[in-house]
Amino acid sequence: MNLIATGDIAKTFAKDILLDPVTRGTSDVVHVITGIASSSSVESAKRFYAGVVQPRQSSSIDCSTYGSYKELVEDPAVDLVYISTPHSHHFQNCMLALNHKKAVLCEKPIAVNARQARKLHEVAKEKEVFLMEAMWTRFLPLSVVIRQLINDRVIGDMLRVYVNNSIGTAVETLDKSHRYLNLALAGGALLDIGVYPLTWLFQTLYHTQDPDLRSPPSAISSLVEFHESSGTDQMVSLIMRFSMPSNSRLKVAHGIASTSMVLPDTEARGGPTVHIYGLEGEIQVWGPAHRAQSIKVIPKPGHGQPWERSFPIPAQGHGMFWEADEAARCWLAGKLECPGIPWDESALVMDVADEIRRQVKIVYPDEIETTEYPVQLGARLS
Amino acid sequence: MNLIATGDIAKTFAKDILLDPVTRGTSDVVHVITGIASSSSVESAKRFYAGVVQPRQSSSIDCSTYGSYKELVEDPAVDLVYISTPHSHHFQNCMLALNHKKAVLCEKPIAVNARQARKLHEVAKEKEVFLMEAMWTRFLPLSVVIRQLINDRVIGDMLRVYVNNSIGTAVETLDKSHRYLNLALAGGALLDIGVYPLTWLFQTLYHTQDPDLRSPPSAISSLVEFHESSGTDQMVSLIMRFSMPSNSRLKVAHGIASTSMVLPDTEARGGPTVHIYGLEGEIQVWGPAHRAQSIKVIPKPGHGQPWERSFPIPAQGHGMFWEADEAARCWLAGKLECPGIPWDESALVMDVADEIRRQVKIVYPDEIETTEYPVQLGARLS
Repeated sequence: MNLIATGDIAKTFAKDILLDPVTRGTSDVVHVITGIASSSSVESAKRFYAGVVQPRQSSSIDCSTYGSYKELVEDPAVDLVYISTPHSHHFQNCMLALNHKKAVLCEKPIAVNARQARKLHEVAKEKEVFLMEAMWTRFLPLSVVIRQLINDRVIGDMLRVYVNNSIGTAVETLDKSHRYLNLALAGGALLDIGVYPLTWLFQTLYHTQDPDLRSPPSAISSLVEFHESSGTDQMVSLIMRFSMPSNSRLKVAHGIASTSMVLPDTEARGGPTVHIYGLEGEIQVWGPAHRAQSIKVIPKPGHGQPWERSFPIPAQGHGMFWEADEAARCWLAGKLECPGIPWDESALVMDVADEIRRQVKIVYPDEIETTEYPVQLGARLS
Repeated sequence: MNLIATGDIAKTFAKDILLDPVTRGTSDVVHVITGIASSSSVESAKRFYAGVVQPRQSSSIDCSTYGSYKELVEDPAVDLVYISTPHSHHFQNCMLALNHKKAVLCEKPIAVNARQARKLHEVAKEKEVFLMEAMWTRFLPLSVVIRQLINDRVIGDMLRVYVNNSIGTAVETLDKSHRYLNLALAGGALLDIGVYPLTWLFQTLYHTQDPDLRSPPSAISSLVEFHESSGTDQMVSLIMRFSMPSNSRLKVAHGIASTSMVLPDTEARGGPTVHIYGLEGEIQVWGPAHRAQSIKVIPKPGHGQPWERSFPIPAQGHGMFWEADEAARCWLAGKLECPGIPWDESALVMDVADEIRRQVKIVYPDEIETTEYPVQLGARLS
């Protein structure tokens, strides 16, 4: 794995993937970090190596450091890159890597709008290079089990899913340049934390359907509240309709999502944060929606007792290693996309975000909305 | 108390109010049933007396029976009436009682649209007669405690409330004349069970505010699904915005409500069914939203431990006796409306329902939408 960007998310990701895979039951994949690029200076990359990678990785593994992303992607030794820049920069960074035929695992959301996402998929296809959105929540074993329970029809036809994801950030203490408050970085709740509720709606109500029968959600309505001085969105509630298989009772299900920067993350101590309602019962998800910890399955009255199952994240990890394992498997197998988060779903999530932004007029600078490449972006990265 | 209608709801209500008030800690009010009217025959009323009232009420209390509602309201001995006809009939029945200067406690929703509700309030005011919507859920001690916790700012500024109320009815087994499926009876999820989520949104996000500062919700968006053959609404999800006091953080909160006829009532075994999200923590309500059983208060991280409190409904009652106690107190005190469910809130709930019906074109017959009185309604009551 080669890292593009050296911020907090890169640090969490690197620590995770350098843990012994046996601790999470993985035996077919081992990760190593062979390249690190900082946009500011090679010293930054070297500091990241010394502080994060070196203490965890065998010294027999070479790891190069670069003072620019361009240098990294131009290195013929580089194969798979992990991009963790702000999402405002994903399109340009992914284009850079794909154009150099590097396989890409890019942090969520993969772009700031659906046009950009689809353009990336086109380029990946054209260049025959692997591209995957790093929506790690979908690869938690808990998520995999829930999709299996749905497919096993444990709660029968689904009629409604409600998801909340809030992070209790003291927004008023943040500098205005912080990515949460910075429109030039596509800051705000919708793209930063709202993508988690959306991924829950998609992985439960869309991804569990036969791929040939999936259709995009419709009738999207939203309520959005803004941070006064920065103009970024800080709280979003939305409802939308998903078409369900023709043999399902109502043929539709409702997706309800809510997200807030400032609401405290009480779910960590008293969930549930996701309610998946079906005709035969309910699945509840406990713990923060982005990093859920346990599930409770409640059969409908008279059909057995509720049961619970915990999914602790092993080895004091954050839980990003499972997506890294999956990315590595897909890439090694020569796939272009990961079946766990197919390109069409990455783009559809952006369609929903685009529609909400259209409804309430959330507008980012042209330079981060464009599908032109290359464009030098103005906002400084930390 | 005098009963207009002798159906299942009247039965539940009568059984409840004839329980010894001491069992629920009430010492200032005792209920007796002094009149029973059936629209079909006096024999029906007599059967109700013999089967429900007589076994529970001292034989020293006279109870008259009537073969029509008109006979009951024309009896000068009758004072306070409880109306439990289908909501399609509430406007005509309330008008009948108010025009005879009888005090009225009428089942929820008090009418089928806001114009009717406001007309009833006008008439009650003009005639100087007590009128109250029997929204019993608001008078559960659990509801009273939650409103107090909100007023005590235990969870600080509220930013969002999500409520679900579903009842797991096997709609496909019902006769088409059943009130759930009968447009002539204003059947469907919205007015039958959707009023419970709405009452939760209003009692948390509206009623807890200073009466002078309350303002109606706005930006109402809904998703509604219909029962194929009857055309009644069977599932509703909605979002709306409530203005909050000017000293609150975002100055608004989001209300999210969902309801379904067919979804099983799993909440009874594995809640929560209401999430009240505030800046300082969350209040969860466990058990079915209309008849909630316990609460859990979860302070924000670092601010104390979550705590729980149960509110069992005493004496094997249903929980309607608390609203009856409150109605009696207000009426005896000479009030025209009950502060626990003021007229404006009854009407505002109907405004929300009207707006949803307008959005998705739920239309009832003219005769039950009219504010004309008297109108002889066609639909037969069971």
